[in-house]
Amino acid sequence: MKLYALLTSAGINIAFCAILLSLYSILRKQPSNVSVYFGRKLAQYSPKPRDPFCFERLFPSPGWIVKAWETSEEEMLSVGGMDAVVFLRIVVFSIRIFAIAAIICIFLVLPVNYHGQAMHHGHIPSESLDVFTIGNVKEGSKWLWVHCFALYVISCSACVLLYFEYKSITNMRLAHITGSPPNPSHFAVLVRSIPWSPEQSYSDLVKQFFINYYASSYLSHQMVFDSCTVHKLVTDAYKMLQTPSMKQSSTPSLIRCSICGVSPNSFKMLSNDPVKDKVDLDSTTSEEGASAFVFFKTRYAAVVASQVLQSSNPMLWVTDLAPEPHDVYWSNLCIPYKQLWIRRITTLLAAIVFMFLFLLPVTFVQGLTQLEQLQQSFPFLRGILKKTVVSQVVTGYLPSVILILFLYTVPPTMMLFSAVEGSISRSGRKKSACCKVLYFTIWNVFFVNVFSGSLISQWSVFSSVKDLPTELARAVPTQASFFMTYVLTSGWASMSFEVVQVFALLCNYFTRFILKKDPSNETLSFPYHTEIPKVLLFGLLGFTCSILAPLILPILLVYFFLAYLVYRNQIINVYISKYESGGKFWPIVHNTTIFSLVLTQIIAIGVFGLKRSPVASGFTIPLLIGTLLFNEFCRQRFRPIFENHAATVLIEMDRQDERNGRMEQIHHQLHLAYHQPMHTSQDSSKGERSNHSEDGDSIQDPEDLKPGKASTLVNKS
Amino acid sequence: MKLYALLTSAGINIAFCAILLSLYSILRKQPSNVSVYFGRKLAQYSPKPRDPFCFERLFPSPGWIVKAWETSEEEMLSVGGMDAVVFLRIVVFSIRIFAIAAIICIFLVLPVNYHGQAMHHGHIPSESLDVFTIGNVKEGSKWLWVHCFALYVISCSACVLLYFEYKSITNMRLAHITGSPPNPSHFAVLVRSIPWSPEQSYSDLVKQFFINYYASSYLSHQMVFDSCTVHKLVTDAYKMLQTPSMKQSSTPSLIRCSICGVSPNSFKMLSNDPVKDKVDLDSTTSEEGASAFVFFKTRYAAVVASQVLQSSNPMLWVTDLAPEPHDVYWSNLCIPYKQLWIRRITTLLAAIVFMFLFLLPVTFVQGLTQLEQLQQSFPFLRGILKKTVVSQVVTGYLPSVILILFLYTVPPTMMLFSAVEGSISRSGRKKSACCKVLYFTIWNVFFVNVFSGSLISQWSVFSSVKDLPTELARAVPTQASFFMTYVLTSGWASMSFEVVQVFALLCNYFTRFILKKDPSNETLSFPYHTEIPKVLLFGLLGFTCSILAPLILPILLVYFFLAYLVYRNQIINVYISKYESGGKFWPIVHNTTIFSLVLTQIIAIGVFGLKRSPVASGFTIPLLIGTLLFNEFCRQRFRPIFENHAATVLIEMDRQDERNGRMEQIHHQLHLAYHQPMHTSQDSSKGERSNHSEDGDSIQDPEDLKPGKASTLVNKS
Repeated sequence: MKLYALLTSAGINIAFCAILLSLYSILRKQPSNVSVYFGRKLAQYSPKPRDPFCFERLFPSPGWIVKAWETSEEEMLSVGGMDAVVFLRIVVFSIRIFAIAAIICIFLVLPVNYHGQAMHHGHIPSESLDVFTIGNVKEGSKWLWVHCFALYVISCSACVLLYFEYKSITNMRLAHITGSPPNPSHFAVLVRSIPWSPEQSYSDLVKQFFINYYASSYLSHQMVFDSCTVHKLVTDAYKMLQTPSMKQSSTPSLIRCSICGVSPNSFKMLSNDPVKDKVDLDSTTSEEGASAFVFFKTRYAAVVASQVLQSSNPMLWVTDLAPEPHDVYWSNLCIPYKQLWIRRITTLLAAIVFMFLFLLPVTFVQGLTQLEQLQQSFPFLRGILKKTVVSQVVTGYLPSVILILFLYTVPPTMMLFSAVEGSISRSGRKKSACCKVLYFTIWNVFFVNVFSGSLISQWSVFSSVKDLPTELARAVPTQASFFMTYVLTSGWASMSFEVVQVFALLCNYFTRFILKKDPSNETLSFPYHTEIPKVLLFGLLGFTCSILAPLILPILLVYFFLAYLVYRNQIINVYISKYESGGKFWPIVHNTTIFSLVLTQIIAIGVFGLKRSPVASGFTIPLLIGTLLFNEFCRQRFRPIFENHAATVLIEMDRQDERNGRMEQIHHQLHLAYHQPMHTSQDSSKGERSNHSEDGDSIQDPEDLKPGKASTLVNKS
Repeated sequence: MKLYALLTSAGINIAFCAILLSLYSILRKQPSNVSVYFGRKLAQYSPKPRDPFCFERLFPSPGWIVKAWETSEEEMLSVGGMDAVVFLRIVVFSIRIFAIAAIICIFLVLPVNYHGQAMHHGHIPSESLDVFTIGNVKEGSKWLWVHCFALYVISCSACVLLYFEYKSITNMRLAHITGSPPNPSHFAVLVRSIPWSPEQSYSDLVKQFFINYYASSYLSHQMVFDSCTVHKLVTDAYKMLQTPSMKQSSTPSLIRCSICGVSPNSFKMLSNDPVKDKVDLDSTTSEEGASAFVFFKTRYAAVVASQVLQSSNPMLWVTDLAPEPHDVYWSNLCIPYKQLWIRRITTLLAAIVFMFLFLLPVTFVQGLTQLEQLQQSFPFLRGILKKTVVSQVVTGYLPSVILILFLYTVPPTMMLFSAVEGSISRSGRKKSACCKVLYFTIWNVFFVNVFSGSLISQWSVFSSVKDLPTELARAVPTQASFFMTYVLTSGWASMSFEVVQVFALLCNYFTRFILKKDPSNETLSFPYHTEIPKVLLFGLLGFTCSILAPLILPILLVYFFLAYLVYRNQIINVYISKYESGGKFWPIVHNTTIFSLVLTQIIAIGVFGLKRSPVASGFTIPLLIGTLLFNEFCRQRFRPIFENHAATVLIEMDRQDERNGRMEQIHHQLHLAYHQPMHTSQDSSKGERSNHSEDGDSIQDPEDLKPGKASTLVNKS
């Protein structure tokens, strides 16, 4: 591929992005699109009366960019929650590290590559892209030290930046835990696998167990129901409902829970009289499951109950910290605990099989980049492909587009796998799907392209572990041009599509003008499971190609800047944060970045070996070891905070609430926090649905139903 | 190798074993050897007056065998502790599974192998051993179904037996926890990485922290001292020492601790007056470390404090359940916690490097089994090697002996690595060493022999993961004869050496007759870290060779029967159980057995593939998957019990003690349970040492100093 082909591709993409962004700035001004572009605001405030028509609405304006740029981190935190801020931190981290890498590589590495061979250089735009890669450097050249130095600078700055990011995100997480209003999930424990007894109901067993062993801290419990028609059972809550303190709540997060209640006929408060319960249960054909939420008097007691092994049979009385009320994935709570490990293994295997079956379309797509192959397969195309413009489009654009289209099927599949896996929380499910999509993307976009492009069979990768660095070193530079066009098309274009919300827009027009209905105000939570892997994949491409083919770095920087603006805009205007994992995504990001660095270093070792510079190769090994040690240090230092709550922090919070006399109030509100939604046939009425969209408590995430990308909107009915 | 060479080897070994066992039965009757053969009894009871000389002492007698056979499991439990019983269970499990395998394989598989080819069979003893292996079966033979069936029977019976063993050992562990007398370690938590403060001493910080956060359950604490000259500091203990209740203790495990105390001048009781402490500390140049034992009022409080994440900085206030007093590895307690992860990685790397450097002697040894190579390397040997007896000895005996001699350097090295690693308990160190020795043994005895024997380079193993089953399938049957002789020599002979305790015997005679001293009564704890890997290695050899070369099974059965008798005898008479891990070795055994089964199945898949029986190959795959699922199930069902204490069990124990009114007494005794031993120059006096050997509280395990096998005795001085 020549440089001008790349420039053509870049030109096409710049024009495309400019058109789409302008289109967006016009479309967002149309009142009919408010539900598409301002979903979050709509959900929070009632819609304003429509403005009269004015011509300004027809011209693009950069107002949204200014707004996205100017919003401070505090505002983002209050608007999008901690997860959103952490996500933006990934983008900021990427901008920082690739700015450093770009400076080093463009000014040091690129000239070395370009003048690597004693050759006559022609007009720069007509140079082959290979001239700019490390492939152009002579074997045994002393200038390879420049590459080694650049690698050191990039790796060390990446580690330093990662350390400070991890530290500040850990502090942010601690502040999130202590600073936020009393969170019912801090007081609740999800108990699963309650042993079955013929004499007693599950509810009685739970009560008996916790009164026996946690007498001083046990407050009450609430069973989870098994069937589709479910009920809410709050032990002791019946009497409390009649106390006047019920309606007075000062804490916002709990207020919402007690206010948003499902319509009175859709659930019943049951007393803790077992006989009465039984009658009620039978009459509505619902059944108690072997799971329950147990509420404790203090946060500390809950965290203790969740972290300690309860029974001498580890498969009984399994306790976990409860997810936040909006975060509970109700339909998974009653999966028998004994099934979970099988489900986990099965979904893992299914995901792996899916990953490998996906090879077929990707290999085909990869074939398209080799024009000669294409002409051989389809001789009738020969005439068309001889035209320069067409051949440039085909090599520079088409392969990526097809790949992206195929990739759109991945996130819903992985979400499905993660749901089957049995996560108890939506955020946990999303995190699990995020990991799966990440592995999938890295394997199928990076490795398969690298290996199929270099004509190595995909399966032989596993059979030659020893030669992997050499193979990678041979393959990655040759695929650099593909990765560049991939960033151009997939990266830039996906940002434009993200901001325009093409699918949601079309749906909006369809319902409004064809079905003649008012579109529903369904808002989505941020699709972390598709966006994090995407950003991390581009990071991986950036790291691995940085010293090999530095031309990718400016293209990447443009992508990350675009991502910064677009995601900020989307978080401010479109997505709602229905639930919050408290930054639990960050360890995935950290580990992936370390993986990218290590892969880069392994490839560099291979490249230096191929270029007969064993000293440079040897010098890279300490860097590799240092990076791995750094990762281990971070895992020791920060990781536990993302998995458990620290006892001292919780005790201090408990004490503060007790001093303020808020504890009683919190206890009262706990009983109302978790209510299992009903799903009867009448429930899908409109009024019910708008309730759902407001409190985010719908059984099924709209993401499940989406045909493709997460940033699309589907009417649930 | 011919069958009669194997029979010769077996004959030599049987004679050798018979001689050594007879020698043992004579030697053990000599009063001068009491300290060698009855160390445990000597340590428990005072030695009897010497019997007058009688001729009976000069004749062998099978009394010890009868005694070893008849001792019941309850007696073994009381004598050797739970670890000893678990160890014997490994041997019993091996006998059971290999008895089943032997019946199946000798009566079904062996005839199929022998008549696998349409060939003329000569006189059986002069047949090559290869005739008895699967190598003799024709390609595409229908009789391979017999092998597949045998594999199914062996795998399924192994899984069933493993399940019941795991279950009964789990119950035994629970009974061990609940049934044993009040254990100070259940009430204590080891706190490491106490943050440093310029204003306060560590002791004050600990007190402040636990009074602040664990006010209701905190009892007292005891600092760990940093320097070689160490002190015991028991907060609040000073006053308690003066209470009369101190000396009255009814619980045996605690009585011993309060009685065995080091001589009064070797440690000082310090009050919890910080000013006084400082003066005392300065005057004796000892320093408080950043670690402390913290005692709680109940077992439950201790387990909670140990399992909950304390601080928002996970590297501070690190809590673990304290080891039993005799199990504490004092010199590791003051290693700064921040170093631990580096130490762990470093020792892991060191162990791996050691594992691979060890290849050199092993490869040389392996060369000895190929007579032609030997004759080429050393032409002057040609004459000697032509003699049948010599060549039989060289092929059948010498290689194993050399290998064993080299292997003797391994356990002390691994013990050293595990000590550097930073285990806080002796049993933890031994467990860690056990794993290292196990990996080492399996790699260097099994894999390296298999691969070097089949002339595959050791390094190329890593580079061809895909072809591994085929390579293994090709290599293992050819190495079966080596493994048989290995079991004969290493296995049988090591048992004879174990019972005779050659090294200890020589040391005994040396001190008694050359140095003219009375030998010290140092007794050793059972060397689990050498014996478990040994038994498991023979298990691995048995599984992998079972259907390929069934002749190994009778030899193995003899070994396991011998092991059963010898180890029982040694546990009854020789080794003392100074500390107790409560069966924590079992998960290692379980996992290794599963690994052996899976390896056997992978090899079988390869063999069936080589023999062109893809259907048999395919039928083995479900077995493989089933075995892995079974392992995962066991991990879910039983493993947590071996890592944590169940809360409900501890709460019941606390309640029982409270009902019996024993709690007060236990609290008083807690303060005396942990005392850090002093090490000044005068301390190595004889009186001190005998104290050490009795309570097992010596700083350094004698195993550290041993030149070779753990079953030898070294005078510590």
